[in-house]
Amino acid sequence: MNKDTLITQIKKKKSFLCIGLDVDLAKIPPHLLAEEDPIFAFNKAIIEATHDLTVAYKPNIAFYEAYGIKGWQALDKTIKYLNSNYPEIFTIADAKRGDIGNTSTRYAKAFFEDLAFDSITVAPYMGKDSVEPFLAFKDKFTILLALTSNVGGLDFQPLKIGETPLYQNVLETSKTWTNAEQLMYVVGATRPEYFKAIRKIVPDHFLLVPGIGAQGGSLEEVCKHGINKDIGLLINSSRSIIYASTEKDFAEKSRHEAQKLKQQMQAYF
Amino acid sequence: MNKDTLITQIKKKKSFLCIGLDVDLAKIPPHLLAEEDPIFAFNKAIIEATHDLTVAYKPNIAFYEAYGIKGWQALDKTIKYLNSNYPEIFTIADAKRGDIGNTSTRYAKAFFEDLAFDSITVAPYMGKDSVEPFLAFKDKFTILLALTSNVGGLDFQPLKIGETPLYQNVLETSKTWTNAEQLMYVVGATRPEYFKAIRKIVPDHFLLVPGIGAQGGSLEEVCKHGINKDIGLLINSSRSIIYASTEKDFAEKSRHEAQKLKQQMQAYF
Repeated sequence: MNKDTLITQIKKKKSFLCIGLDVDLAKIPPHLLAEEDPIFAFNKAIIEATHDLTVAYKPNIAFYEAYGIKGWQALDKTIKYLNSNYPEIFTIADAKRGDIGNTSTRYAKAFFEDLAFDSITVAPYMGKDSVEPFLAFKDKFTILLALTSNVGGLDFQPLKIGETPLYQNVLETSKTWTNAEQLMYVVGATRPEYFKAIRKIVPDHFLLVPGIGAQGGSLEEVCKHGINKDIGLLINSSRSIIYASTEKDFAEKSRHEAQKLKQQMQAYF
Repeated sequence: MNKDTLITQIKKKKSFLCIGLDVDLAKIPPHLLAEEDPIFAFNKAIIEATHDLTVAYKPNIAFYEAYGIKGWQALDKTIKYLNSNYPEIFTIADAKRGDIGNTSTRYAKAFFEDLAFDSITVAPYMGKDSVEPFLAFKDKFTILLALTSNVGGLDFQPLKIGETPLYQNVLETSKTWTNAEQLMYVVGATRPEYFKAIRKIVPDHFLLVPGIGAQGGSLEEVCKHGINKDIGLLINSSRSIIYASTEKDFAEKSRHEAQKLKQQMQAYF
């Protein structure tokens, strides 16, 4: 998918919501456990209930990997289902990968070609030659961790290199890499005070923003300095949408939660 | 596995070699492609030919993930084969994972419980609460990226926070985390000049050292400042051992290469 297609979808749906498909069998409605593939059954129901409200889905790969081969089969079915039925929707493999050059190419092929995701999250610690192999794939996006929403995000990311915090150095440096226009950045909603400085460095790139909802971030605070001419934000919510209910009405309730967030987004169009 | 068991094995075998099982179907002997599971057939042959020379095996997970469900099946068979036949050998899932707390726990379960690896490599960028979930597993080791062997390793890792390079800050900070004695660190052989400073900060921890062989690092240079009272090093070699030949004699030739490295290690016992 290219950036224009994503922007067109955002403007058409008046939404910049991303739904995190972080499927935990201990949290899904128990009646689904009788299904042949409970993870896929759950995802399919959530997708059917929310696809007109959201512009992106983001499975966190850890949740699938935790179920071994069955988990990978469920992930494969989920991405195929999305790509066949809703090709306009942007898909994010939240994998936080990153390795030396030839190895990153392996990860890129796995997620961009075999699984056919539109994008993947990548950790920056190993630098340029661990990220550029992902950027080499045309019409695929690499979403670099910049400032994460967790408490430990403050351990290293804001430490100052001279006058510049590490996460800003990551933003600045990554802009010089080949195909940098295919970058997006993870910036947690729990740190809205940083968005102003981030937008000075990357005014045009999309930011993937986790941390709304269960983690306590505020949509309004993020939008204040985060939004740009293309909207430029993908606001992720996982648990508060997908686990809105564990009863038979779970899909309907997840739609209700997604609808609430989408309604808050109307003000920005 | 606990640390004493690893040290005992190292002293018994007079080896601190780790063999990287980075299986690329385009590089393995072509006659193996006729096997039902070529990846596992290759790994089994390499393991049979080298298990008395090495103290650890390290599959890089990217290579398995790249083959989708078949790759995961081959990884599962490989780790089961190792754990059944050579339980004394230390196993490393070179996965470079790391995510927010509850998600890291998922990855830890996948690699420590389901696949039953002894250790996993983890990226530090997301800080304490992304690493401690791995450290919570008893008798399992978390191998934190400190100073990597690739060119991009210099993009952020040596940048100075005040007087201290980032990778040293990572070492210092991680020592304060719960169960820090279960940490090991990745330090590339391509940066031997840094080992002295690293050993001042972490005199007792094991260091996993990639970059010998194909990447150009020198065993002697690394040992000069890297070795400690327990040896404290795992020297990884992948390509130069496992791809020593693409003929029918590939396993024998891989043994020959492993033997050469092991012989160089004799001097340190």
